Amino acid sequence: MLASPTLLASLAHADPAKQGAAPDKPFAEHFIVLQLSESDSKKERLVLSVASNVLKAYGPDKVAVEVVAFGPGIDLLREQNEHRALVDSLVSQGVRFAVCGNTLDTIERETGRRPALNPHAIEVQVGVGHMLELAERGFTIVRP
Amino acid sequence: MLASPTLLASLAHADPAKQGAAPDKPFAEHFIVLQLSESDSKKERLVLSVASNVLKAYGPDKVAVEVVAFGPGIDLLREQNEHRALVDSLVSQGVRFAVCGNTLDTIERETGRRPALNPHAIEVQVGVGHMLELAERGFTIVRP
Amino acid sequence: MLASPTLLASLAHADPAKQGAAPDKPFAEHFIVLQLSESDSKKERLVLSVASNVLKAYGPDKVAVEVVAFGPGIDLLREQNEHRALVDSLVSQGVRFAVCGNTLDTIERETGRRPALNPHAIEVQVGVGHMLELAERGFTIVRP
Repeated sequence: MLASPTLLASLAHADPAKQGAAPDKPFAEHFIVLQLSESDSKKERLVLSVASNVLKAYGPDKVAVEVVAFGPGIDLLREQNEHRALVDSLVSQGVRFAVCGNTLDTIERETGRRPALNPHAIEVQVGVGHMLELAERGFTIVRP
Repeated sequence: MLASPTLLASLAHADPAKQGAAPDKPFAEHFIVLQLSESDSKKERLVLSVASNVLKAYGPDKVAVEVVAFGPGIDLLREQNEHRALVDSLVSQGVRFAVCGNTLDTIERETGRRPALNPHAIEVQVGVGHMLELAERGFTIVRP
Repeated sequence: MLASPTLLASLAHADPAKQGAAPDKPFAEHFIVLQLSESDSKKERLVLSVASNVLKAYGPDKVAVEVVAFGPGIDLLREQNEHRALVDSLVSQGVRFAVCGNTLDTIERETGRRPALNPHAIEVQVGVGHMLELAERGFTIVRP
């Protein structure tokens, strides 16, 4: 079988890195990771508002949005965080919230108690490593 | 027509994502987005100085530089900003300055008045979405 | 010679951008740049701890980690920095530390004296340009 110029052209423009980048968003055309590494109410609100604006701009099916919280940024995902209702509303629109297990381990070691989290938070072992793997799958990292 | 090994090799090394990444910079080999999301004179100066250093390092034809301002970062693009002369000089060297329309809408809603902007500022609907699309076209996002 | 579908498929999935991305890490599968542009002891510690966590998570052979310091961030690489022992230990595990020559030139011009640096620091002409080139070779930029 010969490779036609058309086939070659389509290969040259294919974006295999992004196929299956977000298994729960099969129709996504845009992939964004929002980094949150600070504990600051204004910064938390900014991250949530960026997530919300991006969903509105592309439509929830066309964009995969994942917030990755690590270091002091994990406060957003505490059970009692003041923005809990907005987090839960974004989860219901398909936004994922990952929390760094290394950070939780450190807090537990230092305080004797693991923080109580929003049950929607998805624990990953290393927050930065998780961002790196999302970037390798075609996500763009933005730190608002 | 057959695909020769040479053609295949060149395809494997082609970087289709970046072809036409910056239509106004046909000879660009490097593509950089500088994010500005803070209102702070030192940070504004840092962003402008990074833009200037990158132009000097590669030459204005070989690098496409776009500053994307959103949230409090839009202050750089106000008509009366203290760095206006430097912004205008970078524009004349081909640097693009995009400003987030969502941010302008919010300010207008809250204050009753849309900010007066540097006429060189290019309004985009969603600043972060614009950065995402530039990244998809092969730009690298840096937040100085 | 014909291009078989199998060959074409493998081309479509090859990741030429990353081949040889880190010549001193021939077995690396992950490539990360950590940006440091602030002079702040907590931020310095965070960058070093992220580097250390990423090494632990993937193993030192499987991940290429480079810290790029520019602007006020170069303080981490001064000869007398308080975290010098940790920097040196990371160097011995294969982490690279690059320092922005433009920043050093500016300091020298303003103070009459070039800062004394950790001898492990690798001077590059433009810190941001260096990050850009690493990104073009397949590295992911993270600013902790």
